[in-house]
Amino acid sequence: MKKVVNRVEDVVDEALEGFVAAFPQYLRRVAGTKVLTRARPKAEGLVGLVSGGGSGHEPAHGGYVGYGMLDAAVAGEVFTSPTPDQVLAGIRAASRGAGVLLIIKNYTGDVMNFEIAQEMAESEGIAVQSVVVNDDVAVDGSLYTTGRRGIAGTVFVHKAAGAAAQRGATLDEVRAAAEAAIAQVRSMGFAIAPCTVPAAGQPTFTLGEDEMELGIGIHGEPGTERRPVAPADELADVILGRLSEDLGLTEGCRLAAMVNGMGATPLLELAILARRTRQWAESAGHQLEAVWLGEFMTSLEMAGASISLVRLDDPLADLLAAPADTPALRQGVKHD
Amino acid sequence: MKKVVNRVEDVVDEALEGFVAAFPQYLRRVAGTKVLTRARPKAEGLVGLVSGGGSGHEPAHGGYVGYGMLDAAVAGEVFTSPTPDQVLAGIRAASRGAGVLLIIKNYTGDVMNFEIAQEMAESEGIAVQSVVVNDDVAVDGSLYTTGRRGIAGTVFVHKAAGAAAQRGATLDEVRAAAEAAIAQVRSMGFAIAPCTVPAAGQPTFTLGEDEMELGIGIHGEPGTERRPVAPADELADVILGRLSEDLGLTEGCRLAAMVNGMGATPLLELAILARRTRQWAESAGHQLEAVWLGEFMTSLEMAGASISLVRLDDPLADLLAAPADTPALRQGVKHD
Repeated sequence: MKKVVNRVEDVVDEALEGFVAAFPQYLRRVAGTKVLTRARPKAEGLVGLVSGGGSGHEPAHGGYVGYGMLDAAVAGEVFTSPTPDQVLAGIRAASRGAGVLLIIKNYTGDVMNFEIAQEMAESEGIAVQSVVVNDDVAVDGSLYTTGRRGIAGTVFVHKAAGAAAQRGATLDEVRAAAEAAIAQVRSMGFAIAPCTVPAAGQPTFTLGEDEMELGIGIHGEPGTERRPVAPADELADVILGRLSEDLGLTEGCRLAAMVNGMGATPLLELAILARRTRQWAESAGHQLEAVWLGEFMTSLEMAGASISLVRLDDPLADLLAAPADTPALRQGVKHD
Repeated sequence: MKKVVNRVEDVVDEALEGFVAAFPQYLRRVAGTKVLTRARPKAEGLVGLVSGGGSGHEPAHGGYVGYGMLDAAVAGEVFTSPTPDQVLAGIRAASRGAGVLLIIKNYTGDVMNFEIAQEMAESEGIAVQSVVVNDDVAVDGSLYTTGRRGIAGTVFVHKAAGAAAQRGATLDEVRAAAEAAIAQVRSMGFAIAPCTVPAAGQPTFTLGEDEMELGIGIHGEPGTERRPVAPADELADVILGRLSEDLGLTEGCRLAAMVNGMGATPLLELAILARRTRQWAESAGHQLEAVWLGEFMTSLEMAGASISLVRLDDPLADLLAAPADTPALRQGVKHD
């Protein structure tokens, strides 16, 4: 195993330090925890947003802490849920007196630990609500979860709920914005090469010279179908077809898409998927209002990508286009 | 070779289409060329900026086309210089009546082809000046170049010159800003795994199970020293020491740093290098005013990183902190 690390057991801790070292204008670490919170907390009386989960998905979730998105991100060890006490620290850090919304990806460990933390925070008098993101259409259950997994589409949920919270929406309204995004977002991914969890030292699965996995998650788990490597356009078409069918899209929908690299796939190649996504939208008669292209929720150095679609029913178009200022997502630069 | 591509010969063309498909608010393609230019051109009477080079370094260079940075980016085939006619098309697209500056990375082919294009543009009556970036301290010459190579530090040069041009500086002043940045920026990289050029189909070099290359460039060329894989902190220390020595840093310098992923190295690991970079700056008594952490100039899916330092003598601190709004670099989001 080759990694750019020091001691394997220090990876997450040192990386969190590194994010703060790189982005002190955005991030603070809550002392003694694996929680990153906003360097400039939002105003009192606004709803706080907390997300998180296992590490290894960077820039998720610390990269989305900042203006118009999250107030705190809670990191577990690589591909491991954070413990309830860590999530509780995140809730406390995010609380500005108007309640806190937890955005949880649907994995059994995450759901359990975030819900325990929710109860602990409520017993301290903090109003907490939670939503569970389950955007992955590939599987209805896996080693890690009951029901569909939460993957890259989660970042759209951060963005929508974050914009609502920043504008002063109540806790019920922020939760409704998050649920509106969850209802309209679908994702699916593939891998052409696996990743290696530092503490394990071995790849999470093996693939033959010409094989790929369709329907992979973000924890190095193998997919739902092993098949020969296909051309980029064919992969995009298969995934977009599945997403479209699952969303029940008819002609003329307003959409946003995300082409998300899993870690080791060059932007040069991801752009080819973005090209096909726009071609698909045009040929299907949809209005593709935004394409988010880059690495938003990775799986260490797995090679591959996921594509997400979100239907821009009101108020999502507006919430996704609102200003954001975080380490990994910035929108709304002021021009002269 | 596994890649997310269609036909190998279409990779660059389709990726350029993909960047425009993803970022139509930022980018247009000059018809019939491999040139990306600003969707909203800067005002008449401002100096235009053109950069470019071989593809495979994404987000460089198309990702830096936009407000406060480049006006046009010219793409060659993967790791291959663009031809003079392509560069000329970029110069024409960038020209707003006040002259055009070419920012060239020091590779023999790039320098030759950009300079031929410069002469062609001048014969058309466009005032053109050029600068050559040679930030790589690892080698004094290589297969690809005479003198030091231009690598990731080039993005600091884009930023500094772009800010000056956006503010209305003259062509001489914009060139001076670029030269000030070039004089103060140094970089060095390493790889723990090579990349594969699509048209070649084979890795550019091979490494043993525990080997790495120090001093690699961005074209998959091997480095200056093959050695056992070292801990992240040791790698950072070696590189920062070399950069510091070459810059002749004494105590108390104002600095910015870039920790740049080469393609396949997770942000989780790059953050560990950012942590060490700040520790190093603090222990050396420097004032580290910014750390750019992410993938700025890649080498396809090579695993590894480079670190750059730039000494923030006037006016660089101000120019690097100025607003920018491009696909890959955004600064200055307007908050409520």
